[in-house]
Amino acid sequence: MLTLYYAAGSCALATHIALIDAGADYEAKPVDFAANQQRTPEYLAVNPKGRVPALVTPRGILTESPALLAYVAQSFPAAKLAPLDDAHAFAEVQAFNSYIATTVHVAHAHGRRGYRWADEPEAIAAMKRKAPQVMADSFALIEDGMLRGPWVMGERYSICDPYLFTMASWLEADGVDPARFPKILDHRNRMMERPAARQALAEQAA
Amino acid sequence: MLTLYYAAGSCALATHIALIDAGADYEAKPVDFAANQQRTPEYLAVNPKGRVPALVTPRGILTESPALLAYVAQSFPAAKLAPLDDAHAFAEVQAFNSYIATTVHVAHAHGRRGYRWADEPEAIAAMKRKAPQVMADSFALIEDGMLRGPWVMGERYSICDPYLFTMASWLEADGVDPARFPKILDHRNRMMERPAARQALAEQAA
Repeated sequence: MLTLYYAAGSCALATHIALIDAGADYEAKPVDFAANQQRTPEYLAVNPKGRVPALVTPRGILTESPALLAYVAQSFPAAKLAPLDDAHAFAEVQAFNSYIATTVHVAHAHGRRGYRWADEPEAIAAMKRKAPQVMADSFALIEDGMLRGPWVMGERYSICDPYLFTMASWLEADGVDPARFPKILDHRNRMMERPAARQALAEQAA
Repeated sequence: MLTLYYAAGSCALATHIALIDAGADYEAKPVDFAANQQRTPEYLAVNPKGRVPALVTPRGILTESPALLAYVAQSFPAAKLAPLDDAHAFAEVQAFNSYIATTVHVAHAHGRRGYRWADEPEAIAAMKRKAPQVMADSFALIEDGMLRGPWVMGERYSICDPYLFTMASWLEADGVDPARFPKILDHRNRMMERPAARQALAEQAA
């Protein structure tokens, strides 16, 4: 049994979907960000970083979306969620997920959590103003090259797809018109047709 | 033959060291950031993101440090640079490297490249002011828990070590006193005693 700590609307959705794709036996536990539950001693004992996702496994607690996604793919090889026996193809998957984590998600965070990187309200407001452009620029690289289609890595669905889907679900709230990115929008729509994405969203809304 | 594009003083040092650790046949090519070479059409054809590292392999070009480090470990298994046959232990390695990429390196970037996330000079200055604290906070989590010692993952050296070493080599320039972090400082000193780190630094200084 695996336990996924998540917050609704957070990047933990990617791992949640991947667990369902993998057919994993898991339980999803919400962390209430509105109540600042991620900073409580109880949750910091789970993840000292005070972030989600965190995945409790029989051998310990794992964090960081790219690591969790690869862990799910490797732990459930029958689900074929990553090219596990091909170091080059696996690195392509990891490069995409690392770009999402380091660049796309970080761009998003500047629109909402600028206090992480500056104290002055004017500076935080300046980051918030620029966030839609930074998000759009980071999505443009995905639209123009990284997303091979129909899935991120081409014909085969992988752990890149729920991660892109999660980020793409934030576009409107981040002030970016998804119509600028027809391939990504098409990908998002096709993800929404998959039972795994629907189930994860339903569980998080429950 | 692999070709690593790097800039001296950048995070590409981690992959450079790992290639030497692995005994890889590689060539290291500098990208001159002072001359903005990373934005030239020639380099953007290598890496459309205009960043380093980029690794040219016989099958294509790979990017993103966490992906490259895992690729080196998987491509040269005899070097035992990661626990390749243990999904949980591999995820711990990946979680550490993902934290470096998404949090530590991002904290560093705010001290130098705040223009990525805001346009106003005052906002960029505000990020620069806070960067030492953000860097120190991110290193505190490493000092207080993630770094098991003597190496990041414990007794066995791994692809986490050159990545931590690379970030730790930035501390003074980022306005952080490394004496606050004795375990990390000790790790940095022991890394400097390894031929791989010395050789990579010498090649980048040549």
